[in-house]
Amino acid sequence: MSQINDEVLAANKDYAAEFGNRGKLPMPPGRRFAILTCMDARLDPAKFAGLSEGDAHVIRNAGGRASDDAIRSLVISHKLLGTHEWFVIHHTDCGMETFSNEIMADLLSSSLETATVDETGWHDTGKGPGSTEGRYINWMTIADNKKSVIEDVQRIKHHPLVPDDIPVHGYLYDCKTGKLHEVTGV
Amino acid sequence: MSQINDEVLAANKDYAAEFGNRGKLPMPPGRRFAILTCMDARLDPAKFAGLSEGDAHVIRNAGGRASDDAIRSLVISHKLLGTHEWFVIHHTDCGMETFSNEIMADLLSSSLETATVDETGWHDTGKGPGSTEGRYINWMTIADNKKSVIEDVQRIKHHPLVPDDIPVHGYLYDCKTGKLHEVTGV
Repeated sequence: MSQINDEVLAANKDYAAEFGNRGKLPMPPGRRFAILTCMDARLDPAKFAGLSEGDAHVIRNAGGRASDDAIRSLVISHKLLGTHEWFVIHHTDCGMETFSNEIMADLLSSSLETATVDETGWHDTGKGPGSTEGRYINWMTIADNKKSVIEDVQRIKHHPLVPDDIPVHGYLYDCKTGKLHEVTGV
Repeated sequence: MSQINDEVLAANKDYAAEFGNRGKLPMPPGRRFAILTCMDARLDPAKFAGLSEGDAHVIRNAGGRASDDAIRSLVISHKLLGTHEWFVIHHTDCGMETFSNEIMADLLSSSLETATVDETGWHDTGKGPGSTEGRYINWMTIADNKKSVIEDVQRIKHHPLVPDDIPVHGYLYDCKTGKLHEVTGV
């Protein structure tokens, strides 16, 4: 279907050939915790946090934000599948720090093609038409990456469907070093 | 802070010690694609799809559903960070197939503690109080895992902020074998 599709299927064939006992893993996470982090391509939560298949739930979106959908996932993770400790992990050099709701809505109203960025900001050179639908979405951008961790941990902790006794740790992952740094003040 | 926290930090220390050139990876995904899949602990998308750090965006939630938040992430992935091919990957034996909106709302209204499951269904034996907030959430459960892939691919393809020329592949991951199976009809 496409080169990328072929590459993914070839890699999957190799993985499945060495699958071994992993086919017998139960549904509930064995180490009973969950990680909420960013979709960023540089982040591999299984590697940076030491997860094997079956260990922990991993929830990822743009920014690693505590969106309604992330909270939907966390509540299912605890209520039905028994996780009882959660991590919110944002990171340095996040794309979500490079724009605002207004910038994103303007770019999308110009065209749907990929925009370019330079030291003066984002620019759209794509062919239209764009769409004004972007104005109705909260893109959950990040102005301060420590503050976003603190706010997201607080939102999760205060959610009416989250029990008081679930620890929610806040961390910032450094894309330059691979290190996790605890965010204090959560 | 906790045993799990200590284990995560110890694993992270080992990872960072061998980080090497990964600190120089650019923000945009090098292989220009994105995967939307489930938070399930048994799934490791980097392993089952052959991703190295820097290759691709990975978006995960309960079920791997094309929620508004997943679409927020996909649109950012294409518009700002240049991915131009996407995969929607649900899986066999998904927890989202074991309940309904009504069951989840009832369980949460009984208590916030982890429920138990047996051949007769879900049961809540936790201490209250619960919360009726669960009735206001669409939990995005799955009745048929091939149909959920098809519907989610269709939702993404038809979204007004998604260009027509982005291929969106639909797959079902088999937790027993580690294999990806294409879902036809998308």
